[in-house]
This record gives sequence, structure tokens and C-alpha cells, in this order.
Amino acid sequence: MAYKHLVQYYETDRMKITHHSNYIRFMEEARSDFLRHIGWGYEEFERRGILSPVVHVECDYRKTTTYADVIEVDIIVEEMKGVRLKLGYIMRVWEDVVCEAKSAHCFLDEDGRLMNVKKQLPEFYVELQRHRREALE
Amino acid sequence: MAYKHLVQYYETDRMKITHHSNYIRFMEEARSDFLRHIGWGYEEFERRGILSPVVHVECDYRKTTTYADVIEVDIIVEEMKGVRLKLGYIMRVWEDVVCEAKSAHCFLDEDGRLMNVKKQLPEFYVELQRHRREALE
Amino acid sequence: MAYKHLVQYYETDRMKITHHSNYIRFMEEARSDFLRHIGWGYEEFERRGILSPVVHVECDYRKTTTYADVIEVDIIVEEMKGVRLKLGYIMRVWEDVVCEAKSAHCFLDEDGRLMNVKKQLPEFYVELQRHRREALE
Amino acid sequence: MAYKHLVQYYETDRMKITHHSNYIRFMEEARSDFLRHIGWGYEEFERRGILSPVVHVECDYRKTTTYADVIEVDIIVEEMKGVRLKLGYIMRVWEDVVCEAKSAHCFLDEDGRLMNVKKQLPEFYVELQRHRREALE
Repeated sequence: MAYKHLVQYYETDRMKITHHSNYIRFMEEARSDFLRHIGWGYEEFERRGILSPVVHVECDYRKTTTYADVIEVDIIVEEMKGVRLKLGYIMRVWEDVVCEAKSAHCFLDEDGRLMNVKKQLPEFYVELQRHRREALE
Repeated sequence: MAYKHLVQYYETDRMKITHHSNYIRFMEEARSDFLRHIGWGYEEFERRGILSPVVHVECDYRKTTTYADVIEVDIIVEEMKGVRLKLGYIMRVWEDVVCEAKSAHCFLDEDGRLMNVKKQLPEFYVELQRHRREALE
Repeated sequence: MAYKHLVQYYETDRMKITHHSNYIRFMEEARSDFLRHIGWGYEEFERRGILSPVVHVECDYRKTTTYADVIEVDIIVEEMKGVRLKLGYIMRVWEDVVCEAKSAHCFLDEDGRLMNVKKQLPEFYVELQRHRREALE
Repeated sequence: MAYKHLVQYYETDRMKITHHSNYIRFMEEARSDFLRHIGWGYEEFERRGILSPVVHVECDYRKTTTYADVIEVDIIVEEMKGVRLKLGYIMRVWEDVVCEAKSAHCFLDEDGRLMNVKKQLPEFYVELQRHRREALE
């Protein structure tokens, strides 16, 4: 069920490896896929006039990857508390972990105010809880 | 007076050269700089509710470039006729031509209709004429 | 059998459409897929010490696309004559043609010399002929 | 003395802001500029057969930026201990901090072994010490 990204030639650099900045993009691809999967694609947020900026990202690069590698990205809800959603990512090529990452997100209503997800988007909150680390273990 | 782009590491690929797709972006950088220079930056078009999609691009790659090269981009108005603006680009590293390129653009008013630049944006038209190949020779 | 690309959020721009430079990358994705498919992936060229720089690209943008669109790319061999391979691309979303494109490529041996594909890579030449426009019609 | 990056149109996304992945690239631009400045550009490492992969990045996004903003990036050596170099970045538009970031790097010799920078690259180590936070305060 992991999201799969096939590394493209244009994603490599002169060190002959996938450029590190692209993993931030693979995170977005996997997140986009995950949200669509639980019924809350970006389109749904846009339709409601909700913006969801990324407020934090971090990546630990474990092994290099390169052109034609298939990176499998597993995503998990680390925490949904107050106004902030925290996600965790593990990226693998075959069985090797190549990158571990985290991101944090907030949600802004049509007037640009921070939303309390549990109160203002309860159906979304419930979906997120179902994909928390604890729930999956 | 040419626009200068310093090639970044993330713009190279595993062939150890600047990835060819990036030249399309250098064209946009130079175009953006040129339009701002003649008083018609994208901000000005946005302020008037005008969109300007790219309708054509082409690049002939003459020599490879790589990390830390400074690419100088000269831009010229090839033609401004009816609804279409055609631009030409020559990119050089030192004296060597590394890429020759062209792009074409149209302009859409707030209702998404094609604009006749000479009639509807006469001040812009005049500026473009001053940067035509003939005018510069 | 067309190659499919799902447009990502990071591929859009503030005009809310897929940035035009990305189509050059979709061309590479489709080409990479096509070459692998006919048994001549980039890995095969790298293994033989052959480099294959892109010498020309051009795109005609017909309609805009945006986040979450699936772009189908059909690729065809336009010509394989002497040292130059010319490819054609048609990109569609549903039935609409969104972009028509061309690219040209050459092949350099380990000493950086231009290769005559018919003579020096005859098996590759035969595969390419089988995917020429005429052969497919 | 900060490194300056002018945000390009292709760096924005459909939220009309600079896409968050690009800040990782601005970090590389500033780092590349800083290293060149202290006499240790990537070219110098490549010449010695030394590779320097990024092992960690993190970004806290404080405010959004967009097309035509000039982002000033200040870079500082947080720590150079054993095999790991840690850098800190503050990015500002005018006086506003828009992003705070960190990165970590290691150095691999020609045989792919981790290098102890203090012992194996003492001149580089000395330069780094001169740009540590403490030294600058």
C-alpha cells in the first residue's frame, strides 16, 4: 500500500545520485496520495477554501538512491493536536531504508485563521486518528 | 546587459551536465528580467488581470554547461504581431554559444479572451518594438 | 500503452497550472519508459559507455493542465538518420491534446565521438525502425 | 554579505507562494556560495576526489514568500565535530524571517570512507571554526 516513486533522470545530480531536495517532493507526492486515499485530497480542501501550508519538514538521508530506483514511501500520522498535523515517512528501496522524514502542517480557513482540526474538521480528524502510529500497531 | 544565471548543483544531472529542462527555466528568468526592465513585469500583468501563458518553446543545445558556469542570456523580440509575441534567446558561457532558443506567448484578458496587443496594450507594444531585432541592429 | 504522468502540486505555478518547463521533463519520463520498453534503457547506454545528450526540444502547448490531472504521453520515432534520432510526443488529458512536442538526440561513444546508429548500434536501429510513424500506421 | 535569491515564477505553486521544497535548494545555493567564499568550493572537493553528501536537512517555515521576493540567506557553522558538519540558515525578506533551517554533511574520501575533517582536512577545519556562531558573536 506504500506510495511508489520511480526516480527520474532529471532528479539525479552530478554526484550521480538522487538530489536530496527531491525527497521533499516525494513526501508531497506520498502525502497527496494518502490524503486522496482517505477522502481528503487537496481538491477537497480547496473546494472549502482551506489552505494547508507546510510549516516544517525534516529528512534524514540513510542511503543514496539513483535513476530508475523505485522508492516506496510509507506515511503515518504522528500527531494531530490542536492546529498542527505531524506526519512521518519512511522511504525504502527494496528492504533498505533510504530516508526517514517528518513534516508538519496547519490549516487556514477562508479568512486565513488557523483552524482547530478536531472542532472544525471533525470528519477529517477521525480519519487521521485511524492512521496514527498507535492505531496501526 | 545580458541576464546572468549561475548554474546550481541541483540543476546538474548524472551525465554531470546542466539538465536540458533547466534551460527552459533560464529562459523564463531572462524574460522575467527583461519585462521588468521595460516596465512590464509579470506583476503589472497580474495587476491588470492579464494572464500570459507560454504557447511554444524550443531549444537548440549547442554545448553542454555544468555546475558553477555563468550562463549569459541575451533576449530579443522576434515578432509582435496580432495576438502572439515571439522572443529569441542566445545563451553563452564566455564567448561560446551554449543554447539558442525561442518562445511564443499570448495574452488573455480577465474574461480569458485573446488580446490584440497593438490595440489593447499599445504602450507595451511600443516598448516591444524598441527591442525588435531590426531596431537593435 | 501510453506513459502516464500524474501532475503533482509542486509542478504547478501561481497561474494555477502545470508550469510549462515540466513538460520537457514529462517527455524525458516517457522517453525513458519507451527506451526501457524496447530493451534500450539509459542503463544499457551507460553500461556501454555511450552518452546520449538531448540536442533539441520543442513544445506546442495546446491546453493548460493542473494538479491531479493524468497526462498520457504517446511517443513515436520520427526519424533515425545518420547521427540523429528524432522523436515526437503527443500528450493528452482524457481525449484532449494538451501538448505536442519533439526532441532530437545524438549518441557519443566512450571517446566522445558522434556515433552512426545504423552502423554502430544496429540492434537499436532495428528496434527504432519498428516504432517509426510509418511502421505504426 | 548574505546570499540573495530572487524567487522565480517557476518556483511558485498554485497556492501562489514559493513551493516549500525550493528552500532546500536555496540552502544549497547559499552553502555553495559560502564554501566558495572561504576557498572550499565543491570544485575543490571534487578535485581531491572527496564527495560530500547531505545527511540531514530541516526547515521551519515562518512566513510565505512569492515570485519576485528577494530572499537573503545567512549561513553559520553550528558545529564541526568528528565526521559531521552542521550548518544553520536564516532566510529573510526585508526584515522578516521567512525560514530557519539546518543541514548536516559528511565527507567521503576516494574510497568512500568517512573522513575526520579536523585530522584529514585541517585547513578546511580552521576556516569552518572561523565561521562558527561563537566566533561571530
